[in-house]
Amino acid sequence: MDEFASIRHWTSGRQSEEWQRERGVRLGIGDDAALIDPAAPIAGVTPPYEYVLAMDTMVETVHFNETTMSYEDIGYKALASNISDIAAMGGVPLQALVSVSVPRQLGPELMRRLYDGLYACADQYGVAIIGGDTTSSPQHLVVAVTVTGAVEAGKALRRSGAQPGDAVVLTGPVGMSAAGLHFLLAQRERGADALAGERVAQLVQAHQRPAPSVRAGRLLLARETCHSLNDVSDGLASEAWEIAEASGLAVSLFEEQLPRSGSMTAYAGAAGIDPLEWMLYGGEDYVLLGSMELGDAAAAQVAFHSEGLPFYIIGETAAGTPAVELIRKTVKGELRQRLAKKGYNHFE
Amino acid sequence: MDEFASIRHWTSGRQSEEWQRERGVRLGIGDDAALIDPAAPIAGVTPPYEYVLAMDTMVETVHFNETTMSYEDIGYKALASNISDIAAMGGVPLQALVSVSVPRQLGPELMRRLYDGLYACADQYGVAIIGGDTTSSPQHLVVAVTVTGAVEAGKALRRSGAQPGDAVVLTGPVGMSAAGLHFLLAQRERGADALAGERVAQLVQAHQRPAPSVRAGRLLLARETCHSLNDVSDGLASEAWEIAEASGLAVSLFEEQLPRSGSMTAYAGAAGIDPLEWMLYGGEDYVLLGSMELGDAAAAQVAFHSEGLPFYIIGETAAGTPAVELIRKTVKGELRQRLAKKGYNHFE
Repeated sequence: MDEFASIRHWTSGRQSEEWQRERGVRLGIGDDAALIDPAAPIAGVTPPYEYVLAMDTMVETVHFNETTMSYEDIGYKALASNISDIAAMGGVPLQALVSVSVPRQLGPELMRRLYDGLYACADQYGVAIIGGDTTSSPQHLVVAVTVTGAVEAGKALRRSGAQPGDAVVLTGPVGMSAAGLHFLLAQRERGADALAGERVAQLVQAHQRPAPSVRAGRLLLARETCHSLNDVSDGLASEAWEIAEASGLAVSLFEEQLPRSGSMTAYAGAAGIDPLEWMLYGGEDYVLLGSMELGDAAAAQVAFHSEGLPFYIIGETAAGTPAVELIRKTVKGELRQRLAKKGYNHFE
Repeated sequence: MDEFASIRHWTSGRQSEEWQRERGVRLGIGDDAALIDPAAPIAGVTPPYEYVLAMDTMVETVHFNETTMSYEDIGYKALASNISDIAAMGGVPLQALVSVSVPRQLGPELMRRLYDGLYACADQYGVAIIGGDTTSSPQHLVVAVTVTGAVEAGKALRRSGAQPGDAVVLTGPVGMSAAGLHFLLAQRERGADALAGERVAQLVQAHQRPAPSVRAGRLLLARETCHSLNDVSDGLASEAWEIAEASGLAVSLFEEQLPRSGSMTAYAGAAGIDPLEWMLYGGEDYVLLGSMELGDAAAAQVAFHSEGLPFYIIGETAAGTPAVELIRKTVKGELRQRLAKKGYNHFE
């Protein structure tokens, strides 16, 4: 198959023209470029809106390998991680372009499975796949995705708006993806694993099929009290550093208030590992980290809980040189520990 | 340097906020996503406009290697090839996102040179760099670019509009990029080359720093007589096939009317090579291939020439099964040769 036949094989018949039209698409896959109507009404977004654009790439051996992810998972997660960037601005995802660089030994059917996962994610989040490109790759699979979205003009939630004295909030537990990856890599080394079970399945799911927090982002934007927002892609510490640097203030996180999922805690206990490293540096959790006044955070927590969504108040900001510290309660009293900025490198 | 420090090192201070604002940008590099005002006036484009989106990737050893391209060239060409897709729709390029997957052995200074070339192209074509991402790569450099543009609503030039009886037109010579690549690869094998000189410099330039045909695309769109349009990225034969298949008709190209640059002809003669293969299958010429009624093509030719731009009438379309043939005049009379669809693989 040539490039065009391959792309047709992977993409045709997946999304109807009418369905794409509702997402602003005037011309999808098949020409030199796609066409979008920037004045099209977008369901749930009050006009006038701004366009949101983000691009994120997944590389074999850096972000995944054949042990940790199926081809369906690779396609799903490549789009999900991009949608998360739209969620982190408070936006609604709309369209995506996908570029795959494919090793020659990979047959078209494996790539079709990658597109199966990609479209599963696209359908779940209402994203129209409108273009991209396919090239060969000398050795490793690379999947680059660009995603577009819409957000009410002037309302997007940025990293840079945190105020001193804000509460630091988090929309879900962290560390589950890293725990799932730990299990997958340990499983490879040890064969079938006695630790496997229902709870591990949740962790593996968190790693392979992460759920971007679109609904949480929209709720936070609508409340109009959120000062800053980031998605946790590179790890909690790294994202807190970004807010600290972009907003020019110091962030303190309270260890005992960090949410720990039961499945992660159980797995870490069975494996004899302190999960704090996963929680602070694991990344790829795709929950949202933000800041707002403490009273607004308490109100947001009530609103999130009434919708069945988790919401945690995990720290506070203060005027000062940008930095992130973890406050731990120990038998010897309160311990303040400066957190490194560096994200976690999954395969080192 | 971490990812964010690297990105700042490569991108900060390159384009002013005001300059980006004139291209619709409300928030550029530095957050989870960029923000664009889809109602911003765009110089030279009559509202209402549609948004144009394309994505194209360059992979080391597939599209370039250290012998054929400097790092500045890689950055320049990665953006130029994307701008060409906007030109092929008759659009004006506006913004770009850039994802680089970088082998560990590549230092930040080589990447800075890549960004030097990227911004040189961005400045030349007025494109705002608004985002992207950086990952490591196990071995090969991969540069994926998404470019946006604007085109008058409903006016974009597509592949699918060719009519039977159209003249096939071309906005510049083909085969120069392939000739330049041939020289670069031959030079590697033979050391300093006796064929080098002024004329070869033009061919090398065509390969390393291609010029997307934005002005030609805008002229064709404004004339409102162009039925179909493609850019010559994969080779003349391949692009003619795309128009033939998308429009459901047959394309004939007249060999003696194909434009040959003097430098390409001279180099091919000195190297003892028939350049027809380069012209038909070389690709990466980034001129435009289209179709329109013969009388309109003649009028367009006059208009292009009066602006100092080349314009060639090189073939015709006819009702029939999609196919592309080359009509050659030989001593034995007219020879009709069916052209393969396959594009050229540069390194095979």
